[in-house]
Amino acid sequence: MTLQKQELLYEGKAKLVYSTTDENVVWIQYKNSATAFNGEKKADITGKGRLNNEITSLLFSMLTQAGIENHFIERKSETEQLVKKVDIIPLEVVVRNITAGSMAKRLGIEEGITLEQPIVEFYYKDDSLGDPLITEDHIQLLKLATPAEVDILKHVARKVNVVLSEFFEKKNLRLVDFKLEFGKTEDGRIILADEVSPDTCRLWDKDTNEKLDKDVFRRNLGSLTDAYEKILARIGGEQHV
Amino acid sequence: MTLQKQELLYEGKAKLVYSTTDENVVWIQYKNSATAFNGEKKADITGKGRLNNEITSLLFSMLTQAGIENHFIERKSETEQLVKKVDIIPLEVVVRNITAGSMAKRLGIEEGITLEQPIVEFYYKDDSLGDPLITEDHIQLLKLATPAEVDILKHVARKVNVVLSEFFEKKNLRLVDFKLEFGKTEDGRIILADEVSPDTCRLWDKDTNEKLDKDVFRRNLGSLTDAYEKILARIGGEQHV
Ligand SMILES: Nc1ncnc2c1ncn2[C@@H]1O[C@H](COP(=O)(O)OP(=O)(O)O)[C@@H](O)[C@H]1O
Ligand SMILES: Nc1ncnc2c1ncn2[C@@H]1O[C@H](COP(=O)(O)OP(=O)(O)O)[C@@H](O)[C@H]1O
Ligand SMILES: [Mg+2]
Ligand SMILES: [Mg+2]
Repeated sequence: MTLQKQELLYEGKAKLVYSTTDENVVWIQYKNSATAFNGEKKADITGKGRLNNEITSLLFSMLTQAGIENHFIERKSETEQLVKKVDIIPLEVVVRNITAGSMAKRLGIEEGITLEQPIVEFYYKDDSLGDPLITEDHIQLLKLATPAEVDILKHVARKVNVVLSEFFEKKNLRLVDFKLEFGKTEDGRIILADEVSPDTCRLWDKDTNEKLDKDVFRRNLGSLTDAYEKILARIGGEQHV
Repeated sequence: MTLQKQELLYEGKAKLVYSTTDENVVWIQYKNSATAFNGEKKADITGKGRLNNEITSLLFSMLTQAGIENHFIERKSETEQLVKKVDIIPLEVVVRNITAGSMAKRLGIEEGITLEQPIVEFYYKDDSLGDPLITEDHIQLLKLATPAEVDILKHVARKVNVVLSEFFEKKNLRLVDFKLEFGKTEDGRIILADEVSPDTCRLWDKDTNEKLDKDVFRRNLGSLTDAYEKILARIGGEQHV
């Protein structure tokens, strides 16, 4: 019997999560909605769900080949994919190679400065609190992860950064920063989950510094789907334009 | 020749800093102004300058006796004191024993929970940025302190916490949290500076949990100077009521 989609477990800002006939698998549907600034800015953008589903699928497959275990199983349709069900750790693990976004704003520094070392930051994934930056002590206090687990998160995040940066570099793209989410499998392993897409990465053209990520939406820099189509074309997906 | 007060170097929210005839000494005058929420709430409170000057002087003297080097030299008048001139490191080093204030708000947790371990946090001392919480990586990026210096700041902050907590405990006060500033002396040592007062510590009565610190002003809980007079009386200063 093939796996069937069952009931909606959760509707997030970007995706719908359905249970399936296999209790260890969830069915993810990418939505066309774009949100920014903790949901304050919103739009429906035709094609976005398809693009993120396709880009995430390609990137997770590439990460699997590079030896980075993740939740991806297979793409089911233009906007759907199957992934291993995990208990998401409510942390946004952010890796930065170049100053930009909230870190530049927080510290009052320019965007576009290449960091001497990549920086890993933790944000508490809680919309009602505005996903605040937190320290490792706060993670302990909230019991979100043990110190050993925090070390795994940092270690894997840095490894993902090396693999993704090299991959995008060859596509003439600069990986400025990105956000990861991790989850625990039924048997207690921590694996990479959620998505890796232009919604969750900052990607700048290496020559022109053109922004080809969600900042196009955040800052009204033009057509979001045009930008995402460019990413998809460069990383090797079918083009739809 | 005795030391003379010279020109105003800096006017802060709580204190005036004057140069003196000794280039390694500054003359600090405590103001009567109370500010909160990054300067959004303000008031002039007669007696506040005197109380903070006296309390800080007593606490710094006590810390010196406990072996914690700090900038304090001597109290000059009701509202004035002499301190060693330092280059202030623009970090607010916060130590917390009990959840309260901005940390409780950031993490969405109750106030009043005793922490298993004291927590040390760093905030970037920059009013225009709202004194944001930052990580040790951010400190490196901004070159505010070297990793070895950060270790000194944490180590001394924890030592100050042990000494202050025991001291206040005997005065029937719970040291909930506090903020320290450190500076570099002419010969490059890092010493404790600024102030240690009910403006920069949360102090709760051990039996009643009555707040006897700047939260009285922040949250309109009554007379600020009554609260500070109680602190002064308990820690052994002359009473002025
Ligand atoms: N493998 C997985 N198993 C279970 N939940 C997942 C998995 N991968 C991602 N999720 C969760 O799916 C939810 C839907 O995604 P999204 O729309 O981005 O939500 P949100 O608005 O909460 O970020 C998120 O809570 C995300 O953490
Ligand atoms: N020993 C010292 N030498 C030089 N500056 C000091 C010393 N101790 C404290 N300061 C600085 O004195 C200034 C005045 O204090 P305050 O009124 O609290 O200022 P602020 O509003 O900037 O916090 C602060 O910038 C503080 O860092
Ligand atoms: Mg999400
Ligand atoms: Mg101050």
